[in-house]
Amino acid sequence: MNAEILAIGTELLMGQISNTNAQFITARLSELGLNVHYHTVVGDNADRLKESLDLAFRRSDCVIMTGGLGPTYDDMTKETVAEYFNMPLKMDEAALSQITEYFKSRGREMTPSNAKQALIPEGAVTLYNKFGTAPGVLIEKDGKIAVMMPGPPREMKPMFTEYLIPFFEKKSGVTVKSDFIRIFGMGEAEAEKKIAHLTSSSNPTVAPYVNPGELSLRISARAKTKDEAEALIAPVKKEIYEIFGDLIYGEGLTYSLPQCVLDLLREKKLTFASAESCTGGMIASAITDLSGSSEVFLYGAVTYANSAKVNALGVSPETLEKCGAVSEETVLQMAKGVRLKAGSDIGVSTSGIAGPTGGTPDKPVGTVWIAISTKKYEKAFKLFIPGARDRVRNSAMLHVYDLIRRTVKEDLV
Amino acid sequence: MNAEILAIGTELLMGQISNTNAQFITARLSELGLNVHYHTVVGDNADRLKESLDLAFRRSDCVIMTGGLGPTYDDMTKETVAEYFNMPLKMDEAALSQITEYFKSRGREMTPSNAKQALIPEGAVTLYNKFGTAPGVLIEKDGKIAVMMPGPPREMKPMFTEYLIPFFEKKSGVTVKSDFIRIFGMGEAEAEKKIAHLTSSSNPTVAPYVNPGELSLRISARAKTKDEAEALIAPVKKEIYEIFGDLIYGEGLTYSLPQCVLDLLREKKLTFASAESCTGGMIASAITDLSGSSEVFLYGAVTYANSAKVNALGVSPETLEKCGAVSEETVLQMAKGVRLKAGSDIGVSTSGIAGPTGGTPDKPVGTVWIAISTKKYEKAFKLFIPGARDRVRNSAMLHVYDLIRRTVKEDLV
Repeated sequence: MNAEILAIGTELLMGQISNTNAQFITARLSELGLNVHYHTVVGDNADRLKESLDLAFRRSDCVIMTGGLGPTYDDMTKETVAEYFNMPLKMDEAALSQITEYFKSRGREMTPSNAKQALIPEGAVTLYNKFGTAPGVLIEKDGKIAVMMPGPPREMKPMFTEYLIPFFEKKSGVTVKSDFIRIFGMGEAEAEKKIAHLTSSSNPTVAPYVNPGELSLRISARAKTKDEAEALIAPVKKEIYEIFGDLIYGEGLTYSLPQCVLDLLREKKLTFASAESCTGGMIASAITDLSGSSEVFLYGAVTYANSAKVNALGVSPETLEKCGAVSEETVLQMAKGVRLKAGSDIGVSTSGIAGPTGGTPDKPVGTVWIAISTKKYEKAFKLFIPGARDRVRNSAMLHVYDLIRRTVKEDLV
Repeated sequence: MNAEILAIGTELLMGQISNTNAQFITARLSELGLNVHYHTVVGDNADRLKESLDLAFRRSDCVIMTGGLGPTYDDMTKETVAEYFNMPLKMDEAALSQITEYFKSRGREMTPSNAKQALIPEGAVTLYNKFGTAPGVLIEKDGKIAVMMPGPPREMKPMFTEYLIPFFEKKSGVTVKSDFIRIFGMGEAEAEKKIAHLTSSSNPTVAPYVNPGELSLRISARAKTKDEAEALIAPVKKEIYEIFGDLIYGEGLTYSLPQCVLDLLREKKLTFASAESCTGGMIASAITDLSGSSEVFLYGAVTYANSAKVNALGVSPETLEKCGAVSEETVLQMAKGVRLKAGSDIGVSTSGIAGPTGGTPDKPVGTVWIAISTKKYEKAFKLFIPGARDRVRNSAMLHVYDLIRRTVKEDLV
């Protein structure tokens, strides 16, 4: 089945907001085995919306629309689509009482234009909105499928998950299973070369996904049943594990390295602490972004100034004087210092030149030292990360998490 | 002049990335007085790209394309557009030597497919790329304007600013001047009410821009000259300053609160240190993201565990026992503790319940205490921030920066 995404809203064309809905929907649709060939954004203009809808249905069986379901005069998606399908609008009493309840529970007054939101094309399916006032609509008519959903992502996403995922699974009669294999420590180009012979297959498909500083390989198979799809995936997955070995840290579309470290440390009942210079709090921020991090993360020191390296971590002033802040000796003392200070099992540290200024011929921008310290092991590594400040910082942060993972895996804690 | 944006890339249709380029470009084009009626996303497919291009030029005078200029086989934007305009591709020696230099300076080997990136349609203008290997292209032919730019935003944005803003200003014969007034501490709905009488004007236009947790008001005027545009903006700006007073912390599209604090502390030669619990390193990370932060930011402690609050900051175990970690007493001790530890002029702190778990009837999720400590002043504030974990953390972080700003402005350091 071919599908398109059509977003409606002048605020998108003015650049006030970005069409992040399209990314969410298109990712889900391609997981479900639908081919999405186009995304379109059009303003709150009935003529252009109608033309776009017409064009979309000439190219595709299914059009997923977002936006233009609000209570104001501008919002005309439902009216335009109902006219396109020649379906009169009719009050949906259940939707109306849900909207009434929405306002009541918030102590706000409901306006007549909000009642208008409960009008649904006759014969369509109402997609009730648990997080806002505009219900969504699903129309199946003349071999066409049209979906309308509200624009705010916090309303659209749960609606899509609740109603449309089961709908399309049933529709396509296929089960799509996708596995994401997460890799750290190899560039996209090199990884692509290594899996070139796998990416030409059409079922399962193998494709790289690049996240900043990380890489995922998506293996996606379609079959009548989940078991059959899994059977198609298994041998390819085995081969990918053989190719990448311990560069693979886990599986799952959103399974990040910090999450992997959180899980690993929880399982082993280990704790860590961080001493950051160039990453400036990103190591701490990445782990504390995850629920449950308080079990494994005890303390983070952001020691930007040399005085803080001395006072908070016990780095020796002589070392700083002799070797400099960006040096093997300094990061080793930082890692050990923060471990002892926090009473954690593991201490990690960073010190480097994130740029754009501060580089020297000896230590150019992108030079980063990282270190780890445990009771029985300590080691520092020198990285060179080309690129802009945020890239240097982000990559250094991920390298530290990979270092924790490897150290724990190798039983060096 | 009517314009459209056409983004090319299968990764957009698969949902790997979001089309944030469209937001940037469409905002700039509408500032420049162009009408943008459509955004389209199409995959790396020559036929569909050609059809989309054809359709776009039937509707609009100008098509701005992003993506598909890479070195691989998939990347076919330039070839397709050159064919559409019947312009043969020709090697641009200046672009070629820029690409060669790009690889050389990074110590990486250049492949023959990278040389292909320097092929430019004959008669077109090359838009040299300072941040990557793919040059952009500007074509004016048969009354049509076609622009191709690379997909990565860090390459596209500077290219757009350097080449296309002056190009379209000249084209449209108008100068557009926009000022952004940055506000912290008032919600969008309330701010909109206060400026309702200003937003109906068509020149200058006034529109709110919402960043996570912050608000900008954009005043944009069109005129023949820059001076005339500024004269249109001046009285409106004055009125906005009267309305919002000290909620305004600065001006500029990208002028963030942490940047404002960095500038302010540099000017006053003051330093600060942070002790974070619920924000978990975001305060440190936000300031160290900015070049020059080492002058003002001495030390950040991320004290997630109570033991770290005691050991690293000197918070009294009795206070933690009696009042809890999320309390006025604890944040005050944290702020003072980190200030003394770092030897900085200012200490700030956070402790709260970011969720999704950890809430109690007394201290529901979203309860955050923040505090500031200087030699002559200390004070704690209780916030309640409804929403998801990232929202709570981000908003608490911004409140801390606003607290620093106000404290310095009121001469309490």
